[in-house]
Amino acid sequence: MRAIQFAGVRDVRQVEVPKPTIGAGQALVKVAAAGVCQTDIHVRKSAEQMIPDGTILGHEIAGEIVDIADGFPHFSPGSQVIVHPVWSCGVCRMCIAGQENACRNTGNRLHPAPTPGVSVNGGMADYVAVNASALVPADGLDPAFAAVLADAGLVPYHSIRATLDLLGPGSTAVVIGIGGLGQFAVALLRELTAAQIIALDIRDASLAAVREKVNHALRSDDPEVAAKVLAVTGGYGADVVLDLVGNNQTLALSGAVVAPYGAIRVPGLSDGVFSFETSQTSVSLPWGASLTRPYSGNHQDLHDLVALARTGRITANLSRYSFDDGLQAFDDLEAGKIFGRAVIVLADSAS
Amino acid sequence: MRAIQFAGVRDVRQVEVPKPTIGAGQALVKVAAAGVCQTDIHVRKSAEQMIPDGTILGHEIAGEIVDIADGFPHFSPGSQVIVHPVWSCGVCRMCIAGQENACRNTGNRLHPAPTPGVSVNGGMADYVAVNASALVPADGLDPAFAAVLADAGLVPYHSIRATLDLLGPGSTAVVIGIGGLGQFAVALLRELTAAQIIALDIRDASLAAVREKVNHALRSDDPEVAAKVLAVTGGYGADVVLDLVGNNQTLALSGAVVAPYGAIRVPGLSDGVFSFETSQTSVSLPWGASLTRPYSGNHQDLHDLVALARTGRITANLSRYSFDDGLQAFDDLEAGKIFGRAVIVLADSAS
Amino acid sequence: MRAIQFAGVRDVRQVEVPKPTIGAGQALVKVAAAGVCQTDIHVRKSAEQMIPDGTILGHEIAGEIVDIADGFPHFSPGSQVIVHPVWSCGVCRMCIAGQENACRNTGNRLHPAPTPGVSVNGGMADYVAVNASALVPADGLDPAFAAVLADAGLVPYHSIRATLDLLGPGSTAVVIGIGGLGQFAVALLRELTAAQIIALDIRDASLAAVREKVNHALRSDDPEVAAKVLAVTGGYGADVVLDLVGNNQTLALSGAVVAPYGAIRVPGLSDGVFSFETSQTSVSLPWGASLTRPYSGNHQDLHDLVALARTGRITANLSRYSFDDGLQAFDDLEAGKIFGRAVIVLADSAS
Amino acid sequence: MRAIQFAGVRDVRQVEVPKPTIGAGQALVKVAAAGVCQTDIHVRKSAEQMIPDGTILGHEIAGEIVDIADGFPHFSPGSQVIVHPVWSCGVCRMCIAGQENACRNTGNRLHPAPTPGVSVNGGMADYVAVNASALVPADGLDPAFAAVLADAGLVPYHSIRATLDLLGPGSTAVVIGIGGLGQFAVALLRELTAAQIIALDIRDASLAAVREKVNHALRSDDPEVAAKVLAVTGGYGADVVLDLVGNNQTLALSGAVVAPYGAIRVPGLSDGVFSFETSQTSVSLPWGASLTRPYSGNHQDLHDLVALARTGRITANLSRYSFDDGLQAFDDLEAGKIFGRAVIVLADSAS
Repeated sequence: MRAIQFAGVRDVRQVEVPKPTIGAGQALVKVAAAGVCQTDIHVRKSAEQMIPDGTILGHEIAGEIVDIADGFPHFSPGSQVIVHPVWSCGVCRMCIAGQENACRNTGNRLHPAPTPGVSVNGGMADYVAVNASALVPADGLDPAFAAVLADAGLVPYHSIRATLDLLGPGSTAVVIGIGGLGQFAVALLRELTAAQIIALDIRDASLAAVREKVNHALRSDDPEVAAKVLAVTGGYGADVVLDLVGNNQTLALSGAVVAPYGAIRVPGLSDGVFSFETSQTSVSLPWGASLTRPYSGNHQDLHDLVALARTGRITANLSRYSFDDGLQAFDDLEAGKIFGRAVIVLADSAS
Repeated sequence: MRAIQFAGVRDVRQVEVPKPTIGAGQALVKVAAAGVCQTDIHVRKSAEQMIPDGTILGHEIAGEIVDIADGFPHFSPGSQVIVHPVWSCGVCRMCIAGQENACRNTGNRLHPAPTPGVSVNGGMADYVAVNASALVPADGLDPAFAAVLADAGLVPYHSIRATLDLLGPGSTAVVIGIGGLGQFAVALLRELTAAQIIALDIRDASLAAVREKVNHALRSDDPEVAAKVLAVTGGYGADVVLDLVGNNQTLALSGAVVAPYGAIRVPGLSDGVFSFETSQTSVSLPWGASLTRPYSGNHQDLHDLVALARTGRITANLSRYSFDDGLQAFDDLEAGKIFGRAVIVLADSAS
Repeated sequence: MRAIQFAGVRDVRQVEVPKPTIGAGQALVKVAAAGVCQTDIHVRKSAEQMIPDGTILGHEIAGEIVDIADGFPHFSPGSQVIVHPVWSCGVCRMCIAGQENACRNTGNRLHPAPTPGVSVNGGMADYVAVNASALVPADGLDPAFAAVLADAGLVPYHSIRATLDLLGPGSTAVVIGIGGLGQFAVALLRELTAAQIIALDIRDASLAAVREKVNHALRSDDPEVAAKVLAVTGGYGADVVLDLVGNNQTLALSGAVVAPYGAIRVPGLSDGVFSFETSQTSVSLPWGASLTRPYSGNHQDLHDLVALARTGRITANLSRYSFDDGLQAFDDLEAGKIFGRAVIVLADSAS
Repeated sequence: MRAIQFAGVRDVRQVEVPKPTIGAGQALVKVAAAGVCQTDIHVRKSAEQMIPDGTILGHEIAGEIVDIADGFPHFSPGSQVIVHPVWSCGVCRMCIAGQENACRNTGNRLHPAPTPGVSVNGGMADYVAVNASALVPADGLDPAFAAVLADAGLVPYHSIRATLDLLGPGSTAVVIGIGGLGQFAVALLRELTAAQIIALDIRDASLAAVREKVNHALRSDDPEVAAKVLAVTGGYGADVVLDLVGNNQTLALSGAVVAPYGAIRVPGLSDGVFSFETSQTSVSLPWGASLTRPYSGNHQDLHDLVALARTGRITANLSRYSFDDGLQAFDDLEAGKIFGRAVIVLADSAS
């Protein structure tokens, strides 16, 4: 079958590989669409080897079940599914409680459960063998849209659901970084909360894409941006800051605009550092504000997203590529030409 | 009346000052007991001026109402009370929701509401004029014990209540710093949760004071301490870490032992710095772990503590001093001679 | 001043009475608008005396502060306000925790805190003396709209906020009774949740008023209505049922459509009875479903509503009456001619 | 193998049956202990057929895995386990969110997922084939104690965990019915909350068994019992009432002692009826109090209980019977001779 593989440092290529077989607890999914993420770009361009040689990329996967191991009577071949990218044990107290991204039996304290497209083979291929317990029913959704729910939708939803208590009427949410994830963040905040929404980005085109859906769209590199955010929050700052960039500048900005007892959630991973200080007179962060680096999202988060997608209340700005043009998607994303989410559509590919 | 006053940098002294009068919204409290806190020591020894000249110290105050402004029919002269040390507005959305320490109308984004003994006159005096809305009924409690609830009890309770969801059966709580606050933390965790409790301190005498009440009491300066904590938590770390010290070493230790999606709460203010990093391969903090610097506690927290104290299920190790020996309490606390909480008892003072 | 008074059984009339004076803890409000509620109709037509002779009606009050007792520095004459209709003590543990409708110091176990327009004089008058601690800032809102937030908005918001955990994506909310409160319920559900909304009423005109805003608008007296609701919820029923009628038929319907572990909230008070059964084979209610009769709403609920109203995301269908036509509002509401909320506008009345 | 079987109406007997085999998704458990519950007594003595002919009884099961289907790498033969008695689908949004007792794919709106010993073969036998996804690790626990966690422990824990927010310091919990479940309820409340505990029963011997662990132990048939409960709660009633009996008298008592915005949870199923009324002047229930009939408990609840049991902080009063004396356990429980929990111990039985 066809696949896009990490063949070694700075070497991502299209290859032919054998169709995978499944073992106990697994399902074989015929991939309909696979999203392309900044993580994939990072893997391709890093001088350091980030994932094992030969790994098939793709952690945003939607497709159709073609085979499934015994023991999963509620899933059948022919069903459309999305693959939850956190392949946890399913039996520890964290998984049982619905927090698979803190699984106690897979990974370890600093490294989470296996992720398709990163630590095991992913979905940029005609077929992928997946954990059957990671399947989320998605019949009726456009596969390209379904695929990007698995990361571009999941990551912001995970943080928004976890901070809903802070996002009641009168609250303010700041989203830093209005790319694929940021656009989902804005749409989710709009549909699920009454918060005032402030979008920040360094690109005017990104801000333009969400201007109608937010209360304020501001350049994050404006030296006055923190002051402007404070000005529209009565001087007290934002209840939730979602930093989808995570570099030194955005982390500093997050600290400068968060409210006392607010939350800074930083899914963005751009080698930033923030100094958390405990001086009596420290001014790096208001009292009670929390700083967290969330991981992906939980199985329930993805269920919720599918349910929300089915209402038609959220959409995504998708750039579709055929498998043959798949590496072009990488190039375009890396070149900053994608103002939404790039997806490789494999639906019509032969088996 | 008698008072202990900050008279200028490195000058805390006993003085005679006029008895205060009360204005609208205030109550006059005849002080029965006032706790002495590390903050008071810090104010006294700092080369930098931390509070206004002439401020009467004391933010842990218990006493009896002797006069109260109109408009508070549910309080009467003769009642015993504790003074909640966060003098917030009482009418903004945060105060209305029970989160006075994030008041939107007093202080500002980085500085909270006025605090007696710090920004206004406090309770190391025969009388103190207080915000009537800060009163918490405390009839029947020993005033010296009641006083220390207002900070030594309040600070750990505030963080424990906020993290109860993480402290179910099977969880682990680490308390770093077993002084006055740490001993309350241990007692509160024992009575309110089923968590495994691990106490850490650099002083053997402090560990000895709680050894019977905790699962593990360990030296926090043991180079193997993080490994030992991980060993008794299945390698995954502690669900909640309460860092009551807050220096560089304890912050690093907190990060090294917290579990994924656990919480680090740092009431301790010892000029520490922790680098929060957003590298893909960062190891400073597990995914999902939150880092927060909580402030004092809320009015409800103090109500809860009084209710708990009335059950007899928590106690404190108090060192009592007369007013005349009040500065000796400062000296003893500064010299590390207090393994619990120092309280100045004024109950028998003349009016 | 002018007032609408309960002068005795079946005798509500317009009268001239002295302008009230205020005592400690009170504010004098010049009324701009006062809503008319089914409770007022019930008081007027009941053969049984429901409130004290001479009580001025009106528990939905918006206006301007003209005088205020000492001790409330964050409110000033000239400010626009809404009056929270639960006049609780403000100092017990329930009030401190933001649950004034369960106040421990006013009323008793079965009767809540005083309510203006019911147990004390209300707002259908040029002026009203109110608890200053019941004021909610409302500058900039249309007073007629502001007034109806105090009950028609508050009651559904209170129940929706309390059940938000059940109203995530994929959930279903049923609203029974699409009058003034029901229209707010629909608008609030739409703005604050992703729930599928099903509106039920016995009047086609009421259903027509919300048809565009809900997923399904159905006759509640259709013998097939329960089956229809189950059909659009996969057979498992609605996560939340808000019964704004509360008669035998709507209670039975609520039980017939609620999901396992769902919530039935019954603000409606129409002398209904529901048999809660504990047989092994009982079919009156699914396992885990809760049945509750909520009271008004909390102070925070009203703050939240004002914040939401300011965003422009909710509106109300108001029928405005002058003071002189005030009793006509009663007649029209009683005659079923109001498909929204009737409000008596007093703004231009002389002092 | 040996088994205790429901052979028909009023006919429960010891039989020899073939050892079960397992299919996909199942595990074979060698039973070490199986608890006897009032439900078993009810099944045996009812004139109406409650479960299918030939069903092996026993829904409190602890034992050792001897075989397990493919797909469960985190469980191994030789491990000690408890069987969660709610055999839900594991893949719907309720199961994913940790609420298996509201599963959307098994049972229906009024009937929950399959239960061993009721709708499928249970654990009063040498072996039982179970849903592998229902296993909870229990190595190191006494199997007889482990078994009773699965219902006598699980049912009260489920309700207590769900109402923890109401059970803070200063709160009151009432437990009606101090049998096997009630004794667990008292122990759990004592270890997990700071609530004042009031135990009610009609048997002095039951009250005597918990008198040292509760604040008040009162006869529930005392005509003054409601007044006595109100007297020790300041007149406002109990925050949580756990009615483990569920007859007309205990339901009425629950309504008479619950606080405004408190919770009545009724696991007891004794054909009681409570009239929930919506009159303006209704006195059957305080405002805001909720009435719920919870079902068993969730998978996480059972995990939590095992973790708590391992701390040694809870114990149970067990009456142990050999398999040969198993029907004597039924007789003794029916005769009211068991003041704790009866358990059939099969550990030494031959395979």
